[in-house]
Amino acid sequence: MKSGRKDLLGLRDVPREEIEAILTTAAQMREIGRRRVKKVPPLRGRLVVSLFFENSTRTRTSFELAAKRLSADTLSFNASTSSTAKGETLMDTARTIFAMQPDAVVVRHAYAGAPHLLARSFPWSVVNAGDGINEHPSQALLDMLTMQDRLGSIAGRTVAIVGDVQHSRVARSNIFGLSTMGARVLVAGPGTMCRRDLAALPVTVRHTIDDVVAEADVIMMLRIQHERLGRAVLPSQREYAAFYGLDIDRLRRARPDVVVMHPGPINRGVEIGADVADGPQSVILDQVTNGIAVRMALLYRLLGHGDSGGDWHAAD
Amino acid sequence: MKSGRKDLLGLRDVPREEIEAILTTAAQMREIGRRRVKKVPPLRGRLVVSLFFENSTRTRTSFELAAKRLSADTLSFNASTSSTAKGETLMDTARTIFAMQPDAVVVRHAYAGAPHLLARSFPWSVVNAGDGINEHPSQALLDMLTMQDRLGSIAGRTVAIVGDVQHSRVARSNIFGLSTMGARVLVAGPGTMCRRDLAALPVTVRHTIDDVVAEADVIMMLRIQHERLGRAVLPSQREYAAFYGLDIDRLRRARPDVVVMHPGPINRGVEIGADVADGPQSVILDQVTNGIAVRMALLYRLLGHGDSGGDWHAAD
Amino acid sequence: MKSGRKDLLGLRDVPREEIEAILTTAAQMREIGRRRVKKVPPLRGRLVVSLFFENSTRTRTSFELAAKRLSADTLSFNASTSSTAKGETLMDTARTIFAMQPDAVVVRHAYAGAPHLLARSFPWSVVNAGDGINEHPSQALLDMLTMQDRLGSIAGRTVAIVGDVQHSRVARSNIFGLSTMGARVLVAGPGTMCRRDLAALPVTVRHTIDDVVAEADVIMMLRIQHERLGRAVLPSQREYAAFYGLDIDRLRRARPDVVVMHPGPINRGVEIGADVADGPQSVILDQVTNGIAVRMALLYRLLGHGDSGGDWHAAD
Repeated sequence: MKSGRKDLLGLRDVPREEIEAILTTAAQMREIGRRRVKKVPPLRGRLVVSLFFENSTRTRTSFELAAKRLSADTLSFNASTSSTAKGETLMDTARTIFAMQPDAVVVRHAYAGAPHLLARSFPWSVVNAGDGINEHPSQALLDMLTMQDRLGSIAGRTVAIVGDVQHSRVARSNIFGLSTMGARVLVAGPGTMCRRDLAALPVTVRHTIDDVVAEADVIMMLRIQHERLGRAVLPSQREYAAFYGLDIDRLRRARPDVVVMHPGPINRGVEIGADVADGPQSVILDQVTNGIAVRMALLYRLLGHGDSGGDWHAAD
Repeated sequence: MKSGRKDLLGLRDVPREEIEAILTTAAQMREIGRRRVKKVPPLRGRLVVSLFFENSTRTRTSFELAAKRLSADTLSFNASTSSTAKGETLMDTARTIFAMQPDAVVVRHAYAGAPHLLARSFPWSVVNAGDGINEHPSQALLDMLTMQDRLGSIAGRTVAIVGDVQHSRVARSNIFGLSTMGARVLVAGPGTMCRRDLAALPVTVRHTIDDVVAEADVIMMLRIQHERLGRAVLPSQREYAAFYGLDIDRLRRARPDVVVMHPGPINRGVEIGADVADGPQSVILDQVTNGIAVRMALLYRLLGHGDSGGDWHAAD
Repeated sequence: MKSGRKDLLGLRDVPREEIEAILTTAAQMREIGRRRVKKVPPLRGRLVVSLFFENSTRTRTSFELAAKRLSADTLSFNASTSSTAKGETLMDTARTIFAMQPDAVVVRHAYAGAPHLLARSFPWSVVNAGDGINEHPSQALLDMLTMQDRLGSIAGRTVAIVGDVQHSRVARSNIFGLSTMGARVLVAGPGTMCRRDLAALPVTVRHTIDDVVAEADVIMMLRIQHERLGRAVLPSQREYAAFYGLDIDRLRRARPDVVVMHPGPINRGVEIGADVADGPQSVILDQVTNGIAVRMALLYRLLGHGDSGGDWHAAD
């Protein structure tokens, strides 16, 4: 970014000042979404390609809308229905996109490290939109922007992450980002989803949701990934809800001003109760709105704009 | 619209003056499609989302093209391949879209009333692009614009609707709109598709197509929905064509200046003969062209523009 | 084009001066892709529809990007998921698109001659993006632009095309274009893929790749179309690679400055070795970049711009 960052691959190594700068830019960008004309000109004629090897309407749409609000052209390269289905490799697909002269490529891939490989190999900016169980940095940034809105500051706060922490790139990016920002992270989940060796990360591992609810300023519920886990390691939905779901009874044991988050889409009645998801502590929809603002900030900064960012204030 | 209408959910309760105003705006909008530069600026920077829970390339494309000609940004949210496939509810999908701050959402859903639910729950404009067997108001408006072009006026005319009236949202919206505009509606179809209890609607129910052809100023053939009906209730295609298809022989018994319509896509040789579909009485392609103009008029009016509408006359 | 050409259906009858003019315009267009703002205004408000009855992310994307760089609006009509799946005919789909008032339609269809039928029936410009085993003219034009870049001139050069020449529209368009431009074309492939009756075309038929490598200025490898050929006519991949694949050993027998081409996506280790595809003689990525430039030139010229083409030089 200002310091010449070309890519955003993860939050593991992003320093605090940079996260703060991104969140500041994102908070400014958010104002554009409230205008009648939701469009500013800084990326006009630039090309942002979304290259998704795993389907995700929500994340892809959020990035594309962010690019459009900055007046960039967008190209959606759905790798699951394209040449990769004919056996083309990741690198050959990327080379083809390279030859289309994009300015930024937003990548989602089932393998951890795929975006890093592209970032090393190509001159365009790479934004990791989720790589295997590694990182999903824009999600963690939008989560942090949402926390900051509610809590004023992240430093010194306690964030509880509940669910399949082991296989969650959302959890990992949050753990890295939140630690950097000075928050304390508690995690809880079934043994197969939240093992002791997570302790290599800067977190405190607890067992059930009841061990973390009372202390938390923020409770972040993770989505149960039916599609990722085999049947054997997952308790039944009902059992899961009983031990790890956030229902209204559990919420009563939390601080009255606790902030409830979920990356979506939610499984109502499984990891989160319907009345909790729709209740006053829930910021789930703010997360979606902030997602667009954070992705605008990322594209804006990666494509050569500094921290001052005054050039998008002008009406388009 | 001028009167502060936020949504267009159906034609059942839309008064005559408002239908006339929409058709007038649409007739003006149609001129834009004939220009070299088919684009005017009034919705620049506004976001129109198409949220289709049933596939429809034609209707979705028509709305998106209408939005683009008014310079709006468009976002296509194909709900059949997105999170809804992961079990997300209609309301949760809608909440996610809400958080993206759209100005209008064009909805198609298999359940009657789904667009009404969204319209009540969210501040953005909702346009019903087809809800179950209930209504498809933009189709009826484009049909009426097409009739008006050919007949001068709709009032006092006789319109025959032939086919699966029972399960057709196109038929229902036309019945409401045409009655309001002062036309007389005859319907004909097999007993399972055009039952006597339709008489609750302002129509005259006849049995076969031969009972309506001679009297009609307009013959509107409905598409046989192979995908909607079970085999048991549908006669064979050949039998259907014999009793309810509009072939060239039947057309000879109609008024020489009769107008032949079909919402498309047509099943040549089933509900309509190829020579009829391509003949001089057919206005099937005018219907498509008028579809874009009507949808431009709807988006233009719903998103805050009054009847005068002078601001799009300027070159973009 | 300048001479009033409405469509580009194939290279069979395109005279040399016109191919040269297209390549000159394309070489100028290529410069736009290197700019920060990759967008010029000549086709603003014009509508380019891609109508693909066969999936092709790469070609469709290349055309759409070309249209966007000229500021046209694009509409992607995926015919495999639309009304055609409900039994609508090619002509009815085309009539529907006609009623949307497009300026150009880019067509891919499994049947040879489908684009010609549309071009005869409709006033808009048709660009053939591949029709059965007949032609794929924009591919051959981008191939010729790439050869011209490397070789200076195409006239007098020897181009070897290796693989399933019999079923390749890429090969056929190249054979027509290269002959017109004064090149000599050698072809080689298995007997089922490169029969003697090809001699009706202006080519010299050889048997194995080793019969053409040494003489060639350009070696164009064709993709093995697993999806097109039955198992019976195709040797095993390993056998195919042994007799017809271009590996590094074979390349040593070629001229040191030979140009290696492939229309992509490549099957590494089958028709082309990985080290050859990535080596200094390979221009595979230049082909992709040139593809966008050639398609910009085609759309620009077909939609009413002459050879001078000065109007896109201005910054948008």
